Amino acid sequence: MKGILLFGHGARNPEYIEPFRRIRARVEALQPGLPVEIGFLELTQPPLEASIEALVARGVKSIRVVPIFFAPGRHVLKDLPQLLGNAADRFPELEFEVAECVGEVEGVIAAMAAHAVAGT
Amino acid sequence: MKGILLFGHGARNPEYIEPFRRIRARVEALQPGLPVEIGFLELTQPPLEASIEALVARGVKSIRVVPIFFAPGRHVLKDLPQLLGNAADRFPELEFEVAECVGEVEGVIAAMAAHAVAGT
Repeated sequence: MKGILLFGHGARNPEYIEPFRRIRARVEALQPGLPVEIGFLELTQPPLEASIEALVARGVKSIRVVPIFFAPGRHVLKDLPQLLGNAADRFPELEFEVAECVGEVEGVIAAMAAHAVAGT
Repeated sequence: MKGILLFGHGARNPEYIEPFRRIRARVEALQPGLPVEIGFLELTQPPLEASIEALVARGVKSIRVVPIFFAPGRHVLKDLPQLLGNAADRFPELEFEVAECVGEVEGVIAAMAAHAVAGT
């Protein structure tokens, strides 16, 4: 079974997780039954490692990791592969696919532009 | 005249600015002639202050500031108002409106969810 992991940076503000919860709820509405977890690099709970464990516990064999980042920087290009490498050591059968950062996706760019001009 | 300021965090990676350029290009396509600038808090050029100056130089009297952030944290809630306060001291006639963070907007949430499930 495939699962989705929404990967975020994390922040001190406890409300930072809200958009991630809204994305997860949308994904669950689009594909009922698809396991979706949220995991962070730092500051916000849960850490990515725990979310991978949660997906494995739900029977997931293949994870699509979706970086909720505007552009690939150090966190996506270095930290994420390192975290996934560690997870691969623990779960050698698990497959990973890393999606484009959301900020690179045409539909997301278009939605941000529509918000930018709203009311002008 | 109204103008748009896309406000981002900034990063070391020089390609970090790309999504911002794509959003600007989309906005310019949606509303030809509307002045749009990109400004950052740190690391990436130009800084927010320079972008405000550029909008003023283009004849803008009212700026819609659009935080390209997933959620409002310290940078949006504290740093941004401080930067805008400084700009208001320099340009007392200038009006500011701060939009919701892109990550709080329904259309952006929906587009991110669609990307998350793409190919599943």
